[in-house]
Amino acid sequence: MNANYPLLSRIQSPRDLRGLNRAELPQLAQELRDFILQSVSRTGGHLSSNLGTVELTIALHYVFDTPEDRLVWDVGHQTYPHKVLTGRRERMHTLRQLGGLSGFPRRDESEYDTFGTAHSSTSISAALGMALGAQQKGEKRHAVAIIGDGAMTAGMAFEALNNGGMPHAGNVPNLLVVLNDNDMSISPPVGALNKYLARLMSGKFYAAAREGAKQVLKNAPPLFELARRFEEHAKGMVVPGTIFEEFGFNYVGPIDGHDLDALIPTLENLRDKPGAQFLHVVTKKGYGYKLAEADPIAYHGPGKFDPQVGLVKPAAAPKPTFTQVFGQWLCDMAAADPRLVAITPAMREGSGMVEFHKRYPGRYHDVGIAEQHAVTFAAGLACEGLKPVVAIYSTFLQRAYDQLIHDVALQNLPMVFALDRAGLVGADGATHAGAYDIAFVRCIPNMSMLTPADEAETRRALSTAHAHDGPVAVRYPRGSGAGVATTPDLDTLPWGKGEIRREAGPSTGQPRVAILAFGPLLYPALDAGARLDATVANMRFVKPLDAALVERLARSHDALVTVEEGCLPGGAGSAVLEALQAAGVQVPVWSLGLPDRFIEHGDPALLLAGCGLDAAGIEASIRARFLASSGSTPQLRTVNG
Amino acid sequence: MNANYPLLSRIQSPRDLRGLNRAELPQLAQELRDFILQSVSRTGGHLSSNLGTVELTIALHYVFDTPEDRLVWDVGHQTYPHKVLTGRRERMHTLRQLGGLSGFPRRDESEYDTFGTAHSSTSISAALGMALGAQQKGEKRHAVAIIGDGAMTAGMAFEALNNGGMPHAGNVPNLLVVLNDNDMSISPPVGALNKYLARLMSGKFYAAAREGAKQVLKNAPPLFELARRFEEHAKGMVVPGTIFEEFGFNYVGPIDGHDLDALIPTLENLRDKPGAQFLHVVTKKGYGYKLAEADPIAYHGPGKFDPQVGLVKPAAAPKPTFTQVFGQWLCDMAAADPRLVAITPAMREGSGMVEFHKRYPGRYHDVGIAEQHAVTFAAGLACEGLKPVVAIYSTFLQRAYDQLIHDVALQNLPMVFALDRAGLVGADGATHAGAYDIAFVRCIPNMSMLTPADEAETRRALSTAHAHDGPVAVRYPRGSGAGVATTPDLDTLPWGKGEIRREAGPSTGQPRVAILAFGPLLYPALDAGARLDATVANMRFVKPLDAALVERLARSHDALVTVEEGCLPGGAGSAVLEALQAAGVQVPVWSLGLPDRFIEHGDPALLLAGCGLDAAGIEASIRARFLASSGSTPQLRTVNG
Repeated sequence: MNANYPLLSRIQSPRDLRGLNRAELPQLAQELRDFILQSVSRTGGHLSSNLGTVELTIALHYVFDTPEDRLVWDVGHQTYPHKVLTGRRERMHTLRQLGGLSGFPRRDESEYDTFGTAHSSTSISAALGMALGAQQKGEKRHAVAIIGDGAMTAGMAFEALNNGGMPHAGNVPNLLVVLNDNDMSISPPVGALNKYLARLMSGKFYAAAREGAKQVLKNAPPLFELARRFEEHAKGMVVPGTIFEEFGFNYVGPIDGHDLDALIPTLENLRDKPGAQFLHVVTKKGYGYKLAEADPIAYHGPGKFDPQVGLVKPAAAPKPTFTQVFGQWLCDMAAADPRLVAITPAMREGSGMVEFHKRYPGRYHDVGIAEQHAVTFAAGLACEGLKPVVAIYSTFLQRAYDQLIHDVALQNLPMVFALDRAGLVGADGATHAGAYDIAFVRCIPNMSMLTPADEAETRRALSTAHAHDGPVAVRYPRGSGAGVATTPDLDTLPWGKGEIRREAGPSTGQPRVAILAFGPLLYPALDAGARLDATVANMRFVKPLDAALVERLARSHDALVTVEEGCLPGGAGSAVLEALQAAGVQVPVWSLGLPDRFIEHGDPALLLAGCGLDAAGIEASIRARFLASSGSTPQLRTVNG
Repeated sequence: MNANYPLLSRIQSPRDLRGLNRAELPQLAQELRDFILQSVSRTGGHLSSNLGTVELTIALHYVFDTPEDRLVWDVGHQTYPHKVLTGRRERMHTLRQLGGLSGFPRRDESEYDTFGTAHSSTSISAALGMALGAQQKGEKRHAVAIIGDGAMTAGMAFEALNNGGMPHAGNVPNLLVVLNDNDMSISPPVGALNKYLARLMSGKFYAAAREGAKQVLKNAPPLFELARRFEEHAKGMVVPGTIFEEFGFNYVGPIDGHDLDALIPTLENLRDKPGAQFLHVVTKKGYGYKLAEADPIAYHGPGKFDPQVGLVKPAAAPKPTFTQVFGQWLCDMAAADPRLVAITPAMREGSGMVEFHKRYPGRYHDVGIAEQHAVTFAAGLACEGLKPVVAIYSTFLQRAYDQLIHDVALQNLPMVFALDRAGLVGADGATHAGAYDIAFVRCIPNMSMLTPADEAETRRALSTAHAHDGPVAVRYPRGSGAGVATTPDLDTLPWGKGEIRREAGPSTGQPRVAILAFGPLLYPALDAGARLDATVANMRFVKPLDAALVERLARSHDALVTVEEGCLPGGAGSAVLEALQAAGVQVPVWSLGLPDRFIEHGDPALLLAGCGLDAAGIEASIRARFLASSGSTPQLRTVNG
């Protein structure tokens, strides 16, 4: 590898980087870009965004005294160059694998990862905290937030800007915000801010770096010209950077984010200025790899591929993912019900809505990275008698929790929440786990929640939710499931009813066990049930829970086992405990689910097995708990027994 | 009353209002203002904000065809004039009382209340949804959001603005945003946006209404003058409204929000314009009542008072509130630990931080109405070794749920969350209930949570949380508690340990019951326990739960009863069930808490009694469940028994 990367292989830390001659940096950039392309093509991972930040990363570590100075990377999936330059080059082949490097910055992975990111738009807030922390402690270090134009549209970034440029304890904190403007979130950009940024760039793009308003003035057109433009284009005549300057930031840019000769002197200037600084950098996603430049969305997060060939379509179509099942249902229900409207917070591709957007552009609303707005906007649509379907990852619904309670549930508005990525998500890891939705949704009055077990049932669950006169969440996991083919109808499920999928045989002296499965873990539960001769129920509904079924099973079995791909505290297993309490039935229960700790990235099957949630794990847990020494398990006695 | 309100008493609906002659409106405004002052002085409620919106409310209902046209009032505590004009005048004496009018708009209270509000910054999202709903259905109605300058600082409002001025399905929706600028949220305003608004007003305030950019041009200074200003004040030279125009809105204003002759023609003009319109109205909180104008914070939400006299200080100091206990602890701990910093999202007064702000201005951060930013900003401070205390109402933590999970808990950052207003809040009602925090916090890994029982224990719980090396939430209710005096020390509680406060006597044939209380309901539980001769434990910790104590009580009693002022699904009672499951102990449990429905406004004592959470209710529940016919209660048998 040293032959291929003569400069890069010498960089064990940013200190080595800062020892290079400036003239060597373009070659380093080339090596780093090539390394990342080769590395990601072997591991899979984020590509376009990392190819776009090679020069910016080099420049930041070259100019700032990391890790003493704090770099906070928004979202963080663009930090592969940062990881490579901060001592993790030789672990890049483990990226996003169990026990390997995370695909995001993590404080416990490196002292250069100052703040764990993954969900967007947190960086300015965190960096501002660090800046003020340093100020309070009398330390001189710098704090830098690097944020994309997509992430900038979220309200949280606005809140931080609104706060960041103002005096705190008498001083405007020393904070640098670098806007990495590539005209792109994962989906194409939407919203006024992106339009505004585009206008800032038109005619100014690749201009030399300028320093703030005073320097802008030097480059201003003659007064006569200015006056003419003022008359002609009153709305358009805006001094570049106005919005950011209104927030108290000194705006500089836009500059070419692939030009180290622009980046380094500009960053050096800004580093030495006090107060709130804002640098607008323009980069191109996928830069330097033509296939990714041409289709940055396809190369946003590819699997393994041959860089010489690029992505190839899989020969045989795999079984559809839950996301695709949702996308197909959305189109079909839209055809059947003109009231249906669909809302996404910037996740058209990930949520399977490309086809719907094409077929129903007037009923498709991508509101940008703006989960709070997405939910309340949808609530407004529901008030007018439309039937909104909010497609949102489980983990991102956390961003709109108050809106779910205060704007939707309290008003009992009929809406569907299609919660994709429920449960463990694999390579993205703990930040993206949809582990908490059962607990945080079922505690809300008026909310209903379904956990369909497979593809066909997911379609029916969505139709059921759509038909219900109140807010309903339907959760389904990343990837594909048991492969149960959907049917083209829009049939619904019986409301609030589970079903028995397997009946235990007559008692043989061993305790009779019933497994109550919530969601796709029904299938490993069925396997375990077959081996144990246990009853297996597909519960379908977390809320309203089929309490009658729970009670019936409790009365006809010696023990119940609940299974869910969700957190144990407050989860579906606890709902079963609550139902038994309400029914006044005492029966031993054992709940299987995600343990009360954050679960790292890795292959989902391995992770589930590690949590004891594959068929073997479920079987083993039941044996250990209830069947180890039949008739004398301590779990079956009562304190009075 | 007719004699006092000759015009107002004729208004049964906005239709009657629209039948008035324009010349009659100023008198109507005077009567309406006087009515509100008299009414609020008798019921208590929000005053300053309602006195400020009298003319704006009249103008909106005069110009728009309500309820066909949709008015969405942000926050909604300024809707008393709206309520009076929409058929609810004669019920205003029931305001905020059990069974009476809500202090906020509610869809189930009136067809004129198009969207329930209370938490801030939702109105633009909801109104945009309504505008697009009308567009999709081919209806011509108007949608209007009325939002204050404080609410405008929240990211959610920015998200909606960013989305609202852009084409949806080819058209920019017909949406009017009225910015009701009174330079005030509940606390004094902070942040760049407020500074910006202030600058827009300086020199322009009370100018005649202008219509958008073209009209602005007519009023623009001569070109020479413009050029001079451009040179002198490059940063200041901003066409008024630029920010809002950059978002695609046609900006008009600022105009005098108490001048009906400015408001009505301007609203008429805007009503007839297509696309996204933005009207900047300037009002004065407390307008027309000199005492409230002079101190709008004091008159923000007063209790009953004599309008002739104004607010009087209560003669004897009542026992301190939990809020005051927190405020005192904050100052004392800050004196002891220089690492302590305190953060509030615009709730300095409500959270009891006025004194801390005065004594430690450099360690006090009011970030504005920006809960998401508040939490992640605090996380950034924690990364630098400071010890942030985030003071936030339980209900507003819902706004920062993802930040709590993703930025705080996942990184296990040592921080204290002081959750005021946990449980029912009384007059503010369901929107403000802190009912869900136990369920939504305890499902998060790494989080800890304490539920202190009284004032003295709250202080010790806060010290305990501050000393812990991880994120800890301490929840305490609105108002005062049992009145247990605090001590000046900063002692901590044993981590994760509850305590027995009362031991049941030896068995007398009746089942022995143990009550496990979480929080201030310990005191009614002690009363009930004395009458029932039950054991009573003060659990103190929801997480980590004192599982050893739970098991010990389960093994030494015939039944357990949990008591909490929080939602039953997923609450502390469920945590106890989970612990018993883990211990493999079978014992009947009965959980008392808030039922799975939204609880309306009203006197907190009445509401708690209605939920069976006073001493009598707790006693009655236990008798009914476990003691009704001793020895033969069905709850004590097991399915195998």
